[in-house]
Amino acid sequence: MSDARSKLQDLKTRLIEVSDVEYANAILGWDQSTYMPAGGAAARARQSATLSQIAHEKFTDPAIGRLLDDLWPYEESLPYDADDAALIRVARREYERALKVPPDFMARLSSHMAASYQLWTAARPANDFARMQPNLEKTLELSRQLAEFFAPYEHIADPLIDWADYGMKASTISAIFAQLRSELIPIVEVIASQPIADDSCLRQQYPEAEQWAFAVEVIKRFGYDFDRGRMDKTHHPFMTKFSLGDVRITTRVDEGYLGEMIFSAMHEAGHAMYELGICADYEGLPLAHGASAGAHESQSRLWENLVGRSRPFWNFFYPRLQAFFPQQLGGVSLDAFYRAVNKVHRSLIRTDADEVTYNLHVMLRFDFELALLEGRLAVADLPEAWRARYQTDLGIASPDDRDGVLQDVHWYGGIIGGSFQGYTLGNIMAAQFQQAALAAHPDIPAQIARGEFGVLHDWLRENIYRPGMKFTPSELVERVSGQPLSIEPYIAYLRTKYGELYGVWGSFLH
Amino acid sequence: MSDARSKLQDLKTRLIEVSDVEYANAILGWDQSTYMPAGGAAARARQSATLSQIAHEKFTDPAIGRLLDDLWPYEESLPYDADDAALIRVARREYERALKVPPDFMARLSSHMAASYQLWTAARPANDFARMQPNLEKTLELSRQLAEFFAPYEHIADPLIDWADYGMKASTISAIFAQLRSELIPIVEVIASQPIADDSCLRQQYPEAEQWAFAVEVIKRFGYDFDRGRMDKTHHPFMTKFSLGDVRITTRVDEGYLGEMIFSAMHEAGHAMYELGICADYEGLPLAHGASAGAHESQSRLWENLVGRSRPFWNFFYPRLQAFFPQQLGGVSLDAFYRAVNKVHRSLIRTDADEVTYNLHVMLRFDFELALLEGRLAVADLPEAWRARYQTDLGIASPDDRDGVLQDVHWYGGIIGGSFQGYTLGNIMAAQFQQAALAAHPDIPAQIARGEFGVLHDWLRENIYRPGMKFTPSELVERVSGQPLSIEPYIAYLRTKYGELYGVWGSFLH
Repeated sequence: MSDARSKLQDLKTRLIEVSDVEYANAILGWDQSTYMPAGGAAARARQSATLSQIAHEKFTDPAIGRLLDDLWPYEESLPYDADDAALIRVARREYERALKVPPDFMARLSSHMAASYQLWTAARPANDFARMQPNLEKTLELSRQLAEFFAPYEHIADPLIDWADYGMKASTISAIFAQLRSELIPIVEVIASQPIADDSCLRQQYPEAEQWAFAVEVIKRFGYDFDRGRMDKTHHPFMTKFSLGDVRITTRVDEGYLGEMIFSAMHEAGHAMYELGICADYEGLPLAHGASAGAHESQSRLWENLVGRSRPFWNFFYPRLQAFFPQQLGGVSLDAFYRAVNKVHRSLIRTDADEVTYNLHVMLRFDFELALLEGRLAVADLPEAWRARYQTDLGIASPDDRDGVLQDVHWYGGIIGGSFQGYTLGNIMAAQFQQAALAAHPDIPAQIARGEFGVLHDWLRENIYRPGMKFTPSELVERVSGQPLSIEPYIAYLRTKYGELYGVWGSFLH
Repeated sequence: MSDARSKLQDLKTRLIEVSDVEYANAILGWDQSTYMPAGGAAARARQSATLSQIAHEKFTDPAIGRLLDDLWPYEESLPYDADDAALIRVARREYERALKVPPDFMARLSSHMAASYQLWTAARPANDFARMQPNLEKTLELSRQLAEFFAPYEHIADPLIDWADYGMKASTISAIFAQLRSELIPIVEVIASQPIADDSCLRQQYPEAEQWAFAVEVIKRFGYDFDRGRMDKTHHPFMTKFSLGDVRITTRVDEGYLGEMIFSAMHEAGHAMYELGICADYEGLPLAHGASAGAHESQSRLWENLVGRSRPFWNFFYPRLQAFFPQQLGGVSLDAFYRAVNKVHRSLIRTDADEVTYNLHVMLRFDFELALLEGRLAVADLPEAWRARYQTDLGIASPDDRDGVLQDVHWYGGIIGGSFQGYTLGNIMAAQFQQAALAAHPDIPAQIARGEFGVLHDWLRENIYRPGMKFTPSELVERVSGQPLSIEPYIAYLRTKYGELYGVWGSFLH
């Protein structure tokens, strides 16, 4: 056993070294998006590639494989949820995955993705899908090859989904999504038959400094700790982590639309609080990450939507917001404002979509990923298929590719497969987690209405954040809610909230 | 020869990889000083140490030694000043140096320096040399050990000096400094016998935003390119480089003293323009650095003092400065302002010292380094020796250690030996370089008086910046000025400028 302890220590030292290089690379990425002058771009790409390669080499060192082999009996001797057992289990899973992909393939893929992203930044504004098409065909080919390294599989998308949402499969997700879709479509149709909500109060001139100050006040009250994080401006908001003591967020400000920055700050703060809440003992180890893309999104969406677009939240914060913007909001009632931030309408752009229609955007992308990977759909036919599906699912005609098939960066700066399901899984999980939190602490809404978020944050930290990657997403859902993943809490949440908002209680009853 | 070319390519690839890791580490350092939240400190120290170690391992890879051996005949076949010859020569010099220091010693030294620096940040404000003494004794011991790895040497300080100012020795520097001292002391005494200049105009309330805007205007006109750099705030100003396309500076602002930020910005911009002017072909290679600490300081001091405290400079910029600060400077004449920014007075703090007395601060530190390394002076006796020397050289009594022996970070965050001579070598070189620039372009002062810095900047770029480390500092001085390093241009500069300023022409004549 003392031999096992020393081997475990050796393993940890090696894993921490790998994480040092990975986090250093994350710092390079953050700097690139925030403060790097244009002249730094060429060298930065090379430096980042070098660090990736070093991290990969160090992680796939056969010495790590030997340690993992030697530690098997020790792992078996421990309870499943012991930290050491989880560490060895997760490290082995990631080690085996890393070994399956040849480093030169990874390098080719990275370089293709970087070039593709560059091309996309020009092709999207130019509405030029034709320019992207050969590129996207190459991406599809590489995505398929990547999946092949993990053969055999049930569905070719499975290994790619597994990477983001461990343990999930195309078949299980398709089943959940089909169920969700059948519930959502009628809800969206009922709402669409009502007068569209008026959000013009959000579309006034809102100076940046005041938006920033308000958002900082909100996320500080949520519990985002500025001694262990910070917020900067970037073109696209994101969360990034350099250690469990330094988890940063970024945002963007639209002075003509209040809905952009404050909700994006809450969203990213939700991601950040997840990482900041992970058990400090896991620092630098593979356990020190959120459980999955879906689990992560559950936390960003929980704080952004379930809290940040809720009535109790605005009960407390609306007077404060009005104090920041007396001219703009002095004459707008809480009721009107609440309706504005929860306006449901069928729109073209996923990232602008409301809580209800959002999942329709995600699910059609997920379906396209399966169809492309299976070969049922050719890249050349994608724009047309996209338009058709937006017509069917959302009842709107996409006037161009810019705001159609070119709108999301995912396929142009990443792979095809596994890129989107996490968003909807996150919405589903968020409601299921919230239901569990409310069962434990029914007074949370009342606390929120007083601007108090400590009980909710503590509950989330203890139950969801602390274990990090110790459990699979399915295990996490089971442990937290006592149930397998289910769309019911989510649908119930939507029915209640939007039934009330649109005065359509009756229509939503089964 | 095609074999040599492929080996050279291999060497370059390896050296660039090392630089990628080193520059990544520099980004970590920049972030730590500018934006990192407090919670990131612990992990950051570890991440930075990991990158240092990886860079060291990669650089001391025996494969690099073999390539350097194999490339010897190729190097010999080239002219001395061919880029490839210089690359192989400089890489070999640094490789051999790196090999001489055992990695575990380097790790011990780094960790001691980090701990010592932490201790100093508390001990200096507490005026507590006793707390630092055992630490400094350890630093001295480690500095001696470091030097021993390079035995035999003429003087134990030589290897440490050589690290910063390649090719320089304690004996040559002592000789130059003795000569400089004998010239400086009488100049300082004559000035001290005159009424002290009035710089109260600098000590008013100067809001940060305007100071910042003015400094940016100045350094942009100098030619510091904000597309390849940026300026941020830090506790101590510095320049740092992540590639030849991304060279950043930092500054600090004292709203109660105009002299701090604007000159520090010019100083750091001088360092940055040096790096930005290095031949782009050297990107990522050992040639892509300034020739030495002294050569680097020559450029920061040239822009800060020879340009930034000159009459032609203020002829152009003073009206602009007045426009930024009409209340503070509207009633202050150019003459009075020019005298204020060139006030000479014997003071306690090196970094606050004027152009004339500055070198006295440096030279006594240099002498102390030699005495400590030789064992002629014990660390315990240093504070007393410090006070005595300030009395002798500057005629002032140091009231405490805080602003005495504890004032500079160098010995507390670094080694003893080679830390200070570069500042005075830089002043000497700056005047020698300026003399050569003026010989080539006598109209430079007139251009400066019109706010035009292009001819000077181009001349410096072509003659000093472009070659990077291709030449040793002595070679550089010879090539640029046609003379060996000499204090004469510097003394002539001081005599002319301060003779005129203090109306003491006669006293300065030999």
